[in-house]
Amino acid sequence: MSELDEKARKTALTLALEGIAVADPETAIKNALKYDAKKLKVKNEEISLNGRVYVIGAGKASGGMAKAVEEIMGEIVEDGVVAVPEEIVNDYSLKKIRLVGSTHPRPSEKSVHACNEILKLVSGLSEDDVVLALISGGGSALIECPVEGVTIEDMAEVSIALMNAGADIFELNTVRKHLSRIKGGWLARHAYPATLVALMISDVVGDRMDTIASGPTVPDPTTFQDAAAVLQRRKVWDKAPPSIKEYITKGLRGEVPETPKPGDPIFRKVHNHVIASNIDSLKAMQNKAQKLGYNAIILTAMLEGEAREVGKVAAAIAKETLRTGHPIEPPAVILAGGETTVTVTGKGKGGRNQELALAAAIEIKGLTSVAIASIGSDGRDGPTDAAGAVVDGKTVEIALEKGLDPMKYLANNDSYSFFAKAGGHVKTGYTGTNVNDFLIIVVEKKLGA
Amino acid sequence: MSELDEKARKTALTLALEGIAVADPETAIKNALKYDAKKLKVKNEEISLNGRVYVIGAGKASGGMAKAVEEIMGEIVEDGVVAVPEEIVNDYSLKKIRLVGSTHPRPSEKSVHACNEILKLVSGLSEDDVVLALISGGGSALIECPVEGVTIEDMAEVSIALMNAGADIFELNTVRKHLSRIKGGWLARHAYPATLVALMISDVVGDRMDTIASGPTVPDPTTFQDAAAVLQRRKVWDKAPPSIKEYITKGLRGEVPETPKPGDPIFRKVHNHVIASNIDSLKAMQNKAQKLGYNAIILTAMLEGEAREVGKVAAAIAKETLRTGHPIEPPAVILAGGETTVTVTGKGKGGRNQELALAAAIEIKGLTSVAIASIGSDGRDGPTDAAGAVVDGKTVEIALEKGLDPMKYLANNDSYSFFAKAGGHVKTGYTGTNVNDFLIIVVEKKLGA
Repeated sequence: MSELDEKARKTALTLALEGIAVADPETAIKNALKYDAKKLKVKNEEISLNGRVYVIGAGKASGGMAKAVEEIMGEIVEDGVVAVPEEIVNDYSLKKIRLVGSTHPRPSEKSVHACNEILKLVSGLSEDDVVLALISGGGSALIECPVEGVTIEDMAEVSIALMNAGADIFELNTVRKHLSRIKGGWLARHAYPATLVALMISDVVGDRMDTIASGPTVPDPTTFQDAAAVLQRRKVWDKAPPSIKEYITKGLRGEVPETPKPGDPIFRKVHNHVIASNIDSLKAMQNKAQKLGYNAIILTAMLEGEAREVGKVAAAIAKETLRTGHPIEPPAVILAGGETTVTVTGKGKGGRNQELALAAAIEIKGLTSVAIASIGSDGRDGPTDAAGAVVDGKTVEIALEKGLDPMKYLANNDSYSFFAKAGGHVKTGYTGTNVNDFLIIVVEKKLGA
Repeated sequence: MSELDEKARKTALTLALEGIAVADPETAIKNALKYDAKKLKVKNEEISLNGRVYVIGAGKASGGMAKAVEEIMGEIVEDGVVAVPEEIVNDYSLKKIRLVGSTHPRPSEKSVHACNEILKLVSGLSEDDVVLALISGGGSALIECPVEGVTIEDMAEVSIALMNAGADIFELNTVRKHLSRIKGGWLARHAYPATLVALMISDVVGDRMDTIASGPTVPDPTTFQDAAAVLQRRKVWDKAPPSIKEYITKGLRGEVPETPKPGDPIFRKVHNHVIASNIDSLKAMQNKAQKLGYNAIILTAMLEGEAREVGKVAAAIAKETLRTGHPIEPPAVILAGGETTVTVTGKGKGGRNQELALAAAIEIKGLTSVAIASIGSDGRDGPTDAAGAVVDGKTVEIALEKGLDPMKYLANNDSYSFFAKAGGHVKTGYTGTNVNDFLIIVVEKKLGA
């Protein structure tokens, strides 16, 4: 039966790579963007080109996006500034678009510099001009222009305080958008009256466009009141830098402008498109699985929760598929995606994908024809060089034979060390994109079939 | 849109009640057992009746099972002894079968008495006789005959020590079966050479028959070596009662008999059937949902994991169904079952179903046409009078309007108090059966459809 285990593992890996491939920045741009003389076609939308074309952007995947844009329509690009992590700024050779190195996940003066370069480029354009904005995960830190009186350190301080207080990404963005001259639709305000076409690779669970890179091109439904409420609720108000309290207070009094709101006429000139996302990858993976002869379903691209507990749920679904053919008959592929979390209590080395996989391995111990993989699409699971791990019913057995206690490794958040010794690591290297994680369950054959 | 919320909630409740109804002991027996003059038909198996018929049993649902057996074939029952919790011993009026009150979840001398009554009844039967065994959850505690030299207190002590050390139900049973004269196939040994027909209502996730009520009629694949290994691994050996160490040691030396093993000829006379289980209920619920016009799938009947994290996964699936129609197009019902756990850190009142539902409510805040219910099929969620709870996108909003902070109630494991104030409790009263919990996700309408 170990042939079936092998087949299941291989399928899981094939599908993970398919999911990563369709989210590749160059592939995503080339699938979404067509250029034909005087027209741009973005997905099913046509945009006439009568003026100049500028390219801006920010994000970990935006270098690859810029490269693809140059290949498709470099000849008509006037100028461009795209902010990427400084460690990859030399990875791309571009002709028209300038890549600017910046910092991530913590913004710095480099983020301010990159932001100012972008705002300078898009200011004063005419209504015939077109701005292409290439946005991806990490963009929120890579470019930042704080409002007057607030420093980048002040913003970082309040962000960290909010995160430590348990604020979620929506709460965090509500505050940050009200302290920024680029986030929360402000970029769209600056680019007006030019046409603004934003192409986004989503690393946000659920793909809310006002959240990806803090939504620089998207109307902001939140208000200064909401921002103040978040700071109060998370008990960060009292310890926030005075400059921030002062600015928010001015906002509450209407002395400084609100972020651009839904319905604002500037957005008539804005075209926002998500061109790669977790659900897009899952759909491609489902399609691929079906071509390989599997029945395949997508459970969700919005997976959240504690990694080890999600691993148990994955195992429970694998076991039922094996036992009764629910939710689908084997040969079966069950797909999910999203971003789980790890509450660290141990001292080991690992990441959410490896921890999920380890927990699942414990639950599927002894089963045959089943594989479960959890893979980060960016190729980096936590502070490790693995993208994630793939496990089957023999994983625990092999570990025990080597004298490893899987429960101990799990308890110590030491999933990386576990897989380093027991086998099961998936290492893709840095993929250059990020559409969150993939969870892949493969069941080759029903029990007794 | 709140009409859709109402419809979704109503469907969730209808399905929960359907799941409970098909697991009702009388219904389950009547669906599984037919009597026709000289023949018994159990599911698709026919058993000739040429001798006497006896009925034995143990479990929380076994009183209702006994009642149904008397209704179907009371005229030919010679005698019967069925152990039930002492608080419900007077709930059934039976003619031939004696109900014996016993204790649960902690066994006592009453368990020993009930066990001896049962063994007395089935001993010395002829090969033409038929014994019907009615087994359900709780049976493991309600009847117990410790091996020679071991007291019921010794057994309780080692069970509690193992549970406190984190042993799972399989480990616990491995030890208990090797200290018992009825568990682990021993009942089958005593009833031999009579024909033994066991009808079981499963409260064990995955429905392993050797685990339901510790498998008195089922071959035991575990050994004295396994039992000793569990006690060592869980570090219970050293503090175990001397009588237990002594008996296990004798077992290791082959001085006392092993439990009946797979392949033992006695099992040729044994017919084991699960007549109600979580997956059976889920299938009936799926069928009912389809009749009501929903697309319906079963994810798993083997759900395990921390309740609040499973609630997040349920919410993630609901959100994806609403957004993209994955895993199935609305109007959609997504079903799961099993038994989650709660790691108690707070001081509130609640149960695993209510905690799961509260966690899900927080995640689906603001959505419309979605309901999520988590319901214990026994009608008792934790130490509360609720079976569980049903939530929708307005649950959190209503709570906040009433000044309740859902996160605080969740953090304090106080889900019962939350639903008592915010609304959402499902109260069925004690249902008389137990096939674990049902998780029901209903999505009436896709976003934008």
